[in-house]
Order: sequence, then C-alpha cells, then structure tokens
Amino acid sequence: MINITLPDGSVKQYESGSTPMDVAQSISAGLARQVISAKFNGETVETTTALTTDGDLILLTFRDDAGKQAFWHSTSHVMAQAIQELYPGVKLTIGPSIENGFYYDIDFGDQKVSENDFPEIEKRILEIARGKHEFKMRSVSKQDALDFYKSENNKFKVELIENLEDGEITFCDHDSFTDLCRGGHIPNTGFIKAVKLMSTAGAYWRGDENNDQLTRVYGISFPKQKELKEYLALLEEAKKRDHRKLGKELGLFTFSQKVGQGLPLWLPKGAALRNRLENFMKDAQEEAGYEPVVTPHIGHKELYETSGHYAKYGEDSFQPIKTPNEGEEYLLKPMNCPHHCEIFNSEAWSYRDLPKRFAEFGTVYRYEQSGELHGLTRVRGFTQDDAHIFCTADQLDDEFKKVIDLVLYVFGSLGFEDFTAQVSLRDPEDKTKYIGSDENWKKAEQAILNAAKEKGLNYVVETGEAAFYGPKLDFMVKDALGRQWQLGTIQVDYNLPERFELEYKGNDNEMHRPVMIHRAPFGSMERFVAILLEHTAGSFPLWLMPKQAIILSISEKYEKYSKKVLSLLKNHEIRADVDHRGETMGKKIREAEMNKIPYMLIIGEKEAENNQISVRKHGGEDLGAMSVEDFAKIIQTEIDKNLKTFEV
Amino acid sequence: MINITLPDGSVKQYESGSTPMDVAQSISAGLARQVISAKFNGETVETTTALTTDGDLILLTFRDDAGKQAFWHSTSHVMAQAIQELYPGVKLTIGPSIENGFYYDIDFGDQKVSENDFPEIEKRILEIARGKHEFKMRSVSKQDALDFYKSENNKFKVELIENLEDGEITFCDHDSFTDLCRGGHIPNTGFIKAVKLMSTAGAYWRGDENNDQLTRVYGISFPKQKELKEYLALLEEAKKRDHRKLGKELGLFTFSQKVGQGLPLWLPKGAALRNRLENFMKDAQEEAGYEPVVTPHIGHKELYETSGHYAKYGEDSFQPIKTPNEGEEYLLKPMNCPHHCEIFNSEAWSYRDLPKRFAEFGTVYRYEQSGELHGLTRVRGFTQDDAHIFCTADQLDDEFKKVIDLVLYVFGSLGFEDFTAQVSLRDPEDKTKYIGSDENWKKAEQAILNAAKEKGLNYVVETGEAAFYGPKLDFMVKDALGRQWQLGTIQVDYNLPERFELEYKGNDNEMHRPVMIHRAPFGSMERFVAILLEHTAGSFPLWLMPKQAIILSISEKYEKYSKKVLSLLKNHEIRADVDHRGETMGKKIREAEMNKIPYMLIIGEKEAENNQISVRKHGGEDLGAMSVEDFAKIIQTEIDKNLKTFEV
Repeated sequence: MINITLPDGSVKQYESGSTPMDVAQSISAGLARQVISAKFNGETVETTTALTTDGDLILLTFRDDAGKQAFWHSTSHVMAQAIQELYPGVKLTIGPSIENGFYYDIDFGDQKVSENDFPEIEKRILEIARGKHEFKMRSVSKQDALDFYKSENNKFKVELIENLEDGEITFCDHDSFTDLCRGGHIPNTGFIKAVKLMSTAGAYWRGDENNDQLTRVYGISFPKQKELKEYLALLEEAKKRDHRKLGKELGLFTFSQKVGQGLPLWLPKGAALRNRLENFMKDAQEEAGYEPVVTPHIGHKELYETSGHYAKYGEDSFQPIKTPNEGEEYLLKPMNCPHHCEIFNSEAWSYRDLPKRFAEFGTVYRYEQSGELHGLTRVRGFTQDDAHIFCTADQLDDEFKKVIDLVLYVFGSLGFEDFTAQVSLRDPEDKTKYIGSDENWKKAEQAILNAAKEKGLNYVVETGEAAFYGPKLDFMVKDALGRQWQLGTIQVDYNLPERFELEYKGNDNEMHRPVMIHRAPFGSMERFVAILLEHTAGSFPLWLMPKQAIILSISEKYEKYSKKVLSLLKNHEIRADVDHRGETMGKKIREAEMNKIPYMLIIGEKEAENNQISVRKHGGEDLGAMSVEDFAKIIQTEIDKNLKTFEV
Repeated sequence: MINITLPDGSVKQYESGSTPMDVAQSISAGLARQVISAKFNGETVETTTALTTDGDLILLTFRDDAGKQAFWHSTSHVMAQAIQELYPGVKLTIGPSIENGFYYDIDFGDQKVSENDFPEIEKRILEIARGKHEFKMRSVSKQDALDFYKSENNKFKVELIENLEDGEITFCDHDSFTDLCRGGHIPNTGFIKAVKLMSTAGAYWRGDENNDQLTRVYGISFPKQKELKEYLALLEEAKKRDHRKLGKELGLFTFSQKVGQGLPLWLPKGAALRNRLENFMKDAQEEAGYEPVVTPHIGHKELYETSGHYAKYGEDSFQPIKTPNEGEEYLLKPMNCPHHCEIFNSEAWSYRDLPKRFAEFGTVYRYEQSGELHGLTRVRGFTQDDAHIFCTADQLDDEFKKVIDLVLYVFGSLGFEDFTAQVSLRDPEDKTKYIGSDENWKKAEQAILNAAKEKGLNYVVETGEAAFYGPKLDFMVKDALGRQWQLGTIQVDYNLPERFELEYKGNDNEMHRPVMIHRAPFGSMERFVAILLEHTAGSFPLWLMPKQAIILSISEKYEKYSKKVLSLLKNHEIRADVDHRGETMGKKIREAEMNKIPYMLIIGEKEAENNQISVRKHGGEDLGAMSVEDFAKIIQTEIDKNLKTFEV
C-alpha cells in the first residue's frame, strides 16, 4: 500500500501500482471523466503511470494550465501523425506545447504546406482523435531508438537521441504513430474535439540560421467545439484591441527607424494622455506624502557597480558611454534606485525624518533584442512611475498598507476591477540565498501578509519566489477580454541600503540602516498605456480621454454658435473640438466613432435657436437636446464615478 | 589729409598722422579726458597711433568693454613692473586682460607671494600709476628682442619671441619697464586710480602640466576709487547670491560624485519648484496652441548624421552607446530637434495643418570638460523648455510675434523687468556662408525685425551674427545686481527641414519645405533656476515659492489651532508648513528668514482666541493680526501682481 496526499491535504491509501486515473475514479466518476494529466511529487506523469511510492498527487483537467499543456502536447503528436500521412516522407523534429496551443517543426522536403491545406489536416486530426487511441509510453534503448529513426531516415531525431543517455529514452505510441517523447499526455486522443491550425512560419533547426530551414506549423485544440469558437472570437477581438493598431489609429505614439527600435515617440494626443496620467499620480502621491525628485538619465559606471546592476546586467545592456577625455564611463540608467539612494545620502537623517518617499517619473533604458520588442509592452526605453520609500523596519507595516491603498485607488480610477495579487516570500529551507537578517525578513514578510489581508486582497502566497533582496507583492489585472497582465509591484529591499551604506540616527542615538520599498503602481507609462488601450479598446475612462466631446455642425451656418458652445465647454473644463469640415453628418459621426470620442454634440437650426446641443454617445445612444450646462453635469457625474480624490 | 568716419556716420578730415587722441580733442576736451583707447578699422590701436589712411574710428572710454580691456591690460604691465621691483629675479610670461580685470603668470623662482603681500604690491602699483608714465609702443627686430630677454635670463619670453615673425615684434615701454606686447593701452598710467589684487593660483606654462609651474596673480583696477568699492560690494553680494550656495541652503539640488559631475540631482523642494515652472510654461503653451510630445533621450547615430550634429560635435561629445549585439550605435541626445523632425515626418501634412508646434521639456546631454562645469549654469545634462514650430514662410511673421509675446509673459511673471534683445542677421557680403534661398532669408529677417519693432523690444541688430541655418533673436536679462545673463532664444532654421526632407502640401497642391523655429524662453530649467536664484537671492515670486508661509506656534498648546490654520490655508491653495518644534520664537523666525519663507504666521493665545494669525513678512515687516481669509486675500493680490493668465 502507498499513501497518496491530495492538494486539500487529505491522505488516502492505495495499492502500489495504482495510477492517477485509479485515484480519480476512487474519488468520483465525474472527476475521472475530466482528468487529463497529473503531477506526482511535482513531476508531470501520465494518467496511466503506475504509482509505487508515497507522494503528493495533483490531478489536472483542461482548466489547469498544466492540463492544457498536456492537452496541446498530445495534439501535436496527432497533428504530426496526420501530416506524416498526408505528406509522406516529411521529417519530424520537435513539437512542444506553448502558451496558446502547440507547434511542430517539420522538414517538408520538396513538399509545400500552406493555410489552404489546413482544413484537410484538421479533418484528419479529428478522424484520428475519434479513434480514442491511448497514448502509451515505453522505454527504449539508445540503440533501438537510433535504429528506428535511421530506418525512417530522420537525421533530426537521430541528432536528438545522440545527445540523450541510454536508459532515459522513451517513445510514445498512439494508433500507428510513434514519437520520441518525455511524456505528459492526455489518456487518449478522444478528448480532442476541436482543432485549428493557426499559421506556418520558417524556423531553423535548433534556432541556428546555419542549419536546415524547417516549417513550423502552429495549432490549438480544445475539448469542446464551443471553446474553440470562443477562443477564435477572443483572438478577433484582441486583434481589434491591439494597442499598436489603436495607438496608430488614435494618434498616440509612433516609432522611427532613424531614432531607433523600441524607442517610442509620443505624439501630441499620446503625450497629453500620458501627462494626464502623470498628473493624476502626482496629485495622489502628493496627498500620500511623497516628495518629487528629478535625476539624470545617466550615471557613472561606478554607481552601478555599487548597486550591483553592472555585475548582473552590464554585459547584456547598452554599453558604457565614454567621455572624449578624462577617461570617464557612464551608463544609461536601467533603474532609478541608485540615484534615489544618492539623494538620500546627500543629507543626514534622524528617525524623526522617516519615512522619506522620493518619487520620480524616471525614464530608464534597457537593451532588448530587436526580436523581443513589441509595441509599448516591450521597449528599450520607458518611464517608470517610480518611488522609493526609506523607512524604519517598524514603519514597514504602515507604509505597505499605504502603498496598497494607492495601488487600489489607481486601479479603481482606471477601471480595472478584476485583479489578483501574489505575495512572494523567501524559501525558509534555504536562507543562504537571501540577504538581510532573519528578524528583518520576518518583519517584512509579516508586514506584506498583514497588509494584503487587512486590505482584503485576493492573493496567493508563493514561497521561495521572493527576490534575493526582499519579499514582494505583485498585482495582476484581468482586462476586458479576461487576459492577465502584470501591473504594479511593491518590493522590500535590504540590499541597496547595505550597498549604499544608507543610514539614519535612531532614537537610541545609534546609526541604523533604513529599509527601502520600491513601488510603481502603473509599472511604466508605456506598458500601462498599452494595457489600458487593450482593456478599453481606446474608450478610456472619461476623465482621461484626449477629447471628451466633439461638436458636429450640420452646416457652416452654425459656425458662430459652434464656437460659442466650444467656449462654454472650455469654461466647464471639458476638452472638446469642433469638426467644421464641409463633410456629411454621417461621415463626421463615423469618424468621431472611430476616434472613440465619448460624446458627439450635434448642432443644427433647432439647437442654435434654443441655445442647446443634441447629445449622442459613442456607440449610438441618443441623449436628446439639452443645454451645455446640463451636458456638463452629465460629464461631471460620469467622471466622478471613476475619479475620486485620493485621501489618506 | 585723411577722412575719418565716426560711429555716428559723420566724416571729418584730419591731417595724415593725426592720432585718435587728436580726433578726441578736436571733438571736445571733456571727451579727450575720458578716451583711453581706440579702434581703427576694427583693429585696436593706441590713442597715440598715427593714422595715415582713411578709415572708421571708434574712441573708447572705460564704459566700453574694449576700453576696459585696454585699461586692465595696461594695469597688468604696471603690476608686472611692481612685482619685478619687489621680487627681483622673477620671470614674467604673459599677462592678459580678462572678463573682470587681468592676470599675470609669473615664475617667482624660490620666492613666494601670498595674499598677505597684496597690499604692498597694490601700493607700489599706485605709486607708479601716479607718475603718469606714457605707454609707448616700438618695433624691435627679432634679434634685438631675443637679446633683450636673453640678457634678462627669461626663457619664457624667448620662447614666445622665437615663434613670432621678424618685423612683427613690438615692445611697450612705460617708466623704466619694458614688455613684449601687441598693443592696446591707455594713454598713461595716471588713469589707474584704484587697484585690487584678488587672488593667486597655480598655472602651467602654456597650460601644459609637463611645463614649469607658474604663479598666476589676478587683479582688477578702476579709474575711480568709488568704482572699485562698488565692484567689491557687488562681488560680496554676488557671493551671497551664488546659486550653488543658495541651492544648498534652500535644499533645491545637489551633486554626487558617484552619479557624475555636472549631473544635478533635484531635491524635493527643487523638483517641486521646477515642476511649478514647467506647469506654468505648459499652461501658457497650451493656450498658445503648442502640443506636447515626448521623445527618448537617445537616438541612432544615424539620426545625428542626418541632422549634422554628429559631424560637428561627435568627437567632442559623449561617445556612442553600443548595443551588446546587433551592432547598433546610439547617442545621448544633445538636442531635441531631430526627434521632433521625425515626429513631423510620421504624418502627411497640408498647409491647412500648419503651424504645428511641438513642445517638450526635453533633457539633453552635452559633454563639458570638468573644469568648465559650474553649478547649474554649466552642466552636462539639462532640460530645455524646448519647442519647434513648423510653419510656412508666410506664417513666420505671426509666429515670431507670438513667441515674443510668450517670452515677455514669462519674463514678466518671473520678475525680470530689465532686458534687451539682439537680432542676428546674415552677412549680406558673404551669402555663401548660409543655406536657404535669398527670398526666405529676406522673409525671415524681415519677420524678426518687424516682430521686434512691433513688440517694442529694446534691441540691437548684429549683422553677420546669424547662424548658418537662419537668423535669430536672443534675449538678455539684467539681474538685481545689474549682471547680464543670456536667456531665451528664438531661431529660424532652414537647414533641418532640408536635411530631414520635411514637407507639406501647399494650396498649389505641390510639396513644400516648412520653416522651423527653435525656441526656449527659459533656455534650460537648470540655467533658468540658477539665474532666478541669483536674481532673487532665493526670494522667488510668491507664486513660485516652495513654501509660501510657515506657522510658528508660541507653544505646543496651540498645536490643534495650528493644524486648523494649516488646513484652512490648504483650502486656499496656500503652500504652508508648521514649525512645531519646541524652539524659541526667535530661533524659529531666524530659520524662516534664512529659508526665505515669505510669510510667518505667528500663533499665540490671543490669536487662537480670536481665530486669527499674526502675520510677519520676510524681512521683518509686521502686518498685524488678521483672519486666514484676509491673509489669503493678501497672498492672492501679491500673486496676481506677477502671475497673469497668458492670453493669445
């Protein structure tokens, strides 16, 4: 008999040799129908793997990330089989699961495959799937494995096997198909009810451009047809909301090859939006007792040697800037913290002065491979809404709660209602990996946990996920499409105060090291605007919209009245424009819709006569004719719904 | 007879061989008493030089910069004589006039000179001066010149003479003293009525540290004792107003060797001040139709090759930033214009869209030798209140006037009442030095002249002083001590539109190049704050003060009432603090005075009872007891005096 511990902590006894599926069936037949993969003592196993020792068992369904991985990995086997049948002689290489689906890199030889061929392949995959063929793992000797692929004339698999150790090689069989494979499959092909091949791309064998060029075929699959349909609809919607596309359409930002890749140029509307976000944060931070500082975008190499950044990232970063003489070397700053430490060090502090909270919209530069760059979410230069809090260990608790308040205020004002948090603590089994005293870690971890609990956050605790310099709290938001994005972070740091020898005089008249908190509720202006674009599809909260209203005049006769309305709106601090082109009302409305302008104010004879405007909301709702004053009240009510004043 | 043209354009005839002094005497005896030097056809001459050709003559007095130079240069001869007498055997090298006074680099051998010796040297200078010895120039052959200094055992002068051409060597004699000299003296030593040696410093012969070390003796002299006294008083006052000293005392900015020289770190009060200045400018610019943009602090080297900056400044600047792979090279941006050109180029424009006015508080980096760095006025990184206007040639006139309006608004709001302007035009004799068509230059120069005239500026026109790419208008302000500072600049540019191939579609449906205007009313945030500090000695206009008032409570008993007052002040948007330390009122007031806080609000029993505050102005004026509301009105009135809303 073996003892199996389940995730809820319960322990059950089974006969040695029982499989995860046996365990599932012992719990309920319904669960057994859902289980597609399992983890035993942290390792992925088959649902048919015989368990012969005590251990922790997690049963996985398609709802689990690891379950999806098994599902998609298994589908890649089936796709490989289908393609091998339809294109005899192709050579398979590797076919892993990825974040959304799977791919297989295949040498098609002289044969060609294109999107036109996808329906036929998909059809064959589903035919095979319906056979409910079991995935069966078996060990093979290195020689047998080599013989198999040599007979298949597949030099790629041969190369893979040559790098493996005898005794550790496994094949997976299903139906008539065999593949070299480390395992992690669903019980049988029958679970695959929907499949869609997405695209093909060129890929070099082992990612080296000196090697053979292969064809990578991407696909995704689901246990239900409905799930595929939903996924494709989501993809379609995500494409519309792609911040790169919207950023261009709305005139927010652009890139220039001459300036450089990954270095955004903010156009007037984008710069104004960013300004508004910055002012919003500055106001809240002032209320929360932050003080602004401004520091340069470069620093002596020595500064980053002191901070440890140079040793860690120097070689992979933008290289040092030399002076034409005097032999100095500067670096583009990858972080603002060393500069803020130097500001802290420019004065002598007493415990009565703390906490000090230095805030800066600091632009930092980090080198990324050009292939990694992506719109505003992966750039080479970005502006953090950065701040560093220097406090005593006793103040941590309070400071942490205050930062959470600020983060929640930011999320609320920007319309992110669905978010979770992750508390990352150190591994208590391996304290040598971390710096700082036990006492301080205890205080800091307790401060974070207290704060998260007290503020009612929906959080998970990850032990061993802390940075070496301190524990942290990260926020993840879900956007309108249910996609998760990592946003703000709050990190405790015992390292930099040590490296920069920061100190204050305690009430014991001795010198002490302060603790540092790094925090950035937006993360960066670039990333935040990108996420906000994808979340709102450009229909930002009203207080943030570049233009809140546009006046559409039916004919040029009403130009004077339009101007009067514009000036009244300005008095009410409503950001508006006039479209005084000689276009049709239909065209003007269509363009205002495309530009996501929240309110269209239509002016014709009747409106001019009655000193009114006819108000049409973005999306089509007609609010009827009203005075500018009444319209201003509507605007104010809508703004007040999101944007409250931050109060400590 | 020769024809002499005077600066007023009048032409008079004199006998050939007449001297500038003869000309002065022919005009008036009063003038002749004042004249100390002269320029003939642009060259400095002695007042005793025989004029033998027609030409332009400018007679110089001590009020003229060139007059001062002759005066100080002459005094350095006398100082050299005095030192040679008092320290026999010293070796003279070179002794020029400088911006304020003169110096002489001298090899004192084994002898030492210190500030303690200054009174004796000064005394001897004035004794010699009273002898009214004439300065007399004479030509000498190279051989005679070498023989003279070899006999004096002076290897420095020998080296100087060896590098001169025979026939071009002149000596200047006065009293018993002779020096190698190119000329430019006052008539005789008697004009020197006051002299002050300022300091000594080490200096290497010819500035090369491998050469002999010399002692540089600095001094200054005046035609009247009173002028010396005024100068020394001004120096004393300037020392108090030194922005580096005030910046430290008021906690505005600091520097860190670890971050790097010439890279200011703005402390909370300084950053808040800067923010306030930026917001002030942003508001005015928004009203004036500018649009914000944000661009990175680096750009591809290629960008600056296109702009021409790399060819011109590349070698003397911060060197290129290499990427760890992909072989790219970036530069720290020395200017924002190339980035703004790329923003202009990211869209297609019609004449109806122009002018476009892109504004950015853009931080730029320019390498300066560490010896050249000075507080905030000479730094390696600074933020320009930059904007670039892209307009048609026909719009230049109007745009120029609008920029002048903005500059005058800025000066008025910041309390700079005394300023002049300089219009720099191209040299019509040498048009090849400039780029752009005749027609465009004519338009641009006319636009600047019209605008300067129409706006009633006090300006001078300097022909030949235009940049190669266009004419410009510079503003100089005088500070409270009468010192001149160059501030804002407005420049027309035909060059970058050409280099970046900027274009717009005209109403003729053809593509045209826009004209660019560069403008920065502050110049840079760093330099402007420095000048403002030296101008106001830290007593900024009230709207700009970091703290406008401080509440000084007589005892801790009134803490609650103090808090109430603070919150009332906040409601009135008055920036205030409470000094709740248990210090004496005298000490609190002294510190508030030192921190230049404009208003001290004293709270004691009577005030708390009557719901009042006793108001004391910075400097000591007592305004008596009043309600917070009445105090708020005083503040508002004072702010309104300086800070008006900018209206176009």
